[in-house]
Amino acid sequence: MAALAEGEGEVGSLHLAAVMPDLPFLPFCALLGSLGLGCVASVGAWCQHWRGGFAWDGSARMFNWHPVLMVTGMVVLYGAAALVYRLPPAWRGPKLPWKMLHSTLALTAFILAVLGLVAVFNFHNASRTPNMYSLHSWLGLTTVLLFSCQWVAGFSAFLLPYAPIWLRALYKPIHIFFGSTILMLSMASCVSGINEKLFFSLKNGTASVPYKLLPPEAVLANILGLLIILFGVLVLYALAKPSWKRPEADSLDTHQPLLGAEH
Amino acid sequence: MAALAEGEGEVGSLHLAAVMPDLPFLPFCALLGSLGLGCVASVGAWCQHWRGGFAWDGSARMFNWHPVLMVTGMVVLYGAAALVYRLPPAWRGPKLPWKMLHSTLALTAFILAVLGLVAVFNFHNASRTPNMYSLHSWLGLTTVLLFSCQWVAGFSAFLLPYAPIWLRALYKPIHIFFGSTILMLSMASCVSGINEKLFFSLKNGTASVPYKLLPPEAVLANILGLLIILFGVLVLYALAKPSWKRPEADSLDTHQPLLGAEH
Repeated sequence: MAALAEGEGEVGSLHLAAVMPDLPFLPFCALLGSLGLGCVASVGAWCQHWRGGFAWDGSARMFNWHPVLMVTGMVVLYGAAALVYRLPPAWRGPKLPWKMLHSTLALTAFILAVLGLVAVFNFHNASRTPNMYSLHSWLGLTTVLLFSCQWVAGFSAFLLPYAPIWLRALYKPIHIFFGSTILMLSMASCVSGINEKLFFSLKNGTASVPYKLLPPEAVLANILGLLIILFGVLVLYALAKPSWKRPEADSLDTHQPLLGAEH
Repeated sequence: MAALAEGEGEVGSLHLAAVMPDLPFLPFCALLGSLGLGCVASVGAWCQHWRGGFAWDGSARMFNWHPVLMVTGMVVLYGAAALVYRLPPAWRGPKLPWKMLHSTLALTAFILAVLGLVAVFNFHNASRTPNMYSLHSWLGLTTVLLFSCQWVAGFSAFLLPYAPIWLRALYKPIHIFFGSTILMLSMASCVSGINEKLFFSLKNGTASVPYKLLPPEAVLANILGLLIILFGVLVLYALAKPSWKRPEADSLDTHQPLLGAEH
């Protein structure tokens, strides 16, 4: 109890303190991995089983890549990238390999997101539907644009050797803040997109069972939305927990860039 | 620069550190107040000017209370309640009046949210539309239910005199974590709800200008969605900033309950 009370001053991301003081990170990570796999499996099953499967031809089957790639990239892989520095092995020895893992995972997430955008833009263009009119599209594109700035700025500041130490120190908290913020925006974008897609697909009069009567497809996709929220909130929790943060002091190469230190 | 580097260890909610080390809280609060007023004015203008105004009769005009009350309660007033302990006057003297302000604002937010739910349930029942089928409704109701648990648990632990000190110390970080989480869920619920409402209201063939052609109503409501996100992210930022947190040590009545200390 004393430890808890003392820990309050450090209350971390999301105002999180030592809610689960003895919880080890790796079992929590396994839970997160299962939830992430559950998200990818659910969105894949939804699009494969109920929405006609996948193609890359401008049809509705091309659209189906959009939810799969956005959930896999902007939520699951993004969450994995964010948690790299929470892995206990990353706390010891050189930081550079973990920086590279973090940036590679984030780049992979970003590439999937861009492919996911290509899928929806091509589908819209092929069916002569305007792009970028819904709130979902405004928020989603804002999220991906912020992510692209985040990746380029992170790469330039932390992996290229040109940024001075003071600039890295100034930018690091900004990078960390936007890291969590972009994940929140992804969660809101995914939820609004799933909701929108279900209203489009399960319209009264065209679907055999409309959305309002909750056919199995709607139940699965609603659960997918809640799984994404649960996964995202747990990632933000893990990022925020003070005792899971990488101690900075014991690392000799906190500011070690990719191409060797010129400064 | 040295101050920034030292501050990194305390990186707070949303992994925020001293991004804006010299920014005073009160001007930031004024910005938040303007954004909050902007949210309420936008949602009110949307429903009054484009959706036919307000009534309490089971009609679509009764539905219009739903977005207004949810945005005002679950986002703007909720955000104000969350920030009470960040006000510099709350750092000095007895904590009890600030606890009461926090719980009163939160209770007001909760009452508005319940009225907002009554508005949409009554509208659905009057028009024989099923309730609780969309992802928006699942997430939204989860958010309000979590908020009700949060308020009752907070009131029982921090204002009633029965909870022992150790229970308060154990519960406090949980209350703080769920405080930020519920705001995030509110943001996602509002965005999905606004998106859904625009697709309902501005359907092809029924609206004079459909959503996909971005009539002024759609632009205003999309901007409302982004304003809600901006307001929520800035509230989470303010909650997370270490230097804006109320120092616990200098308060003599941190654990002072409403009905006098029995312990």
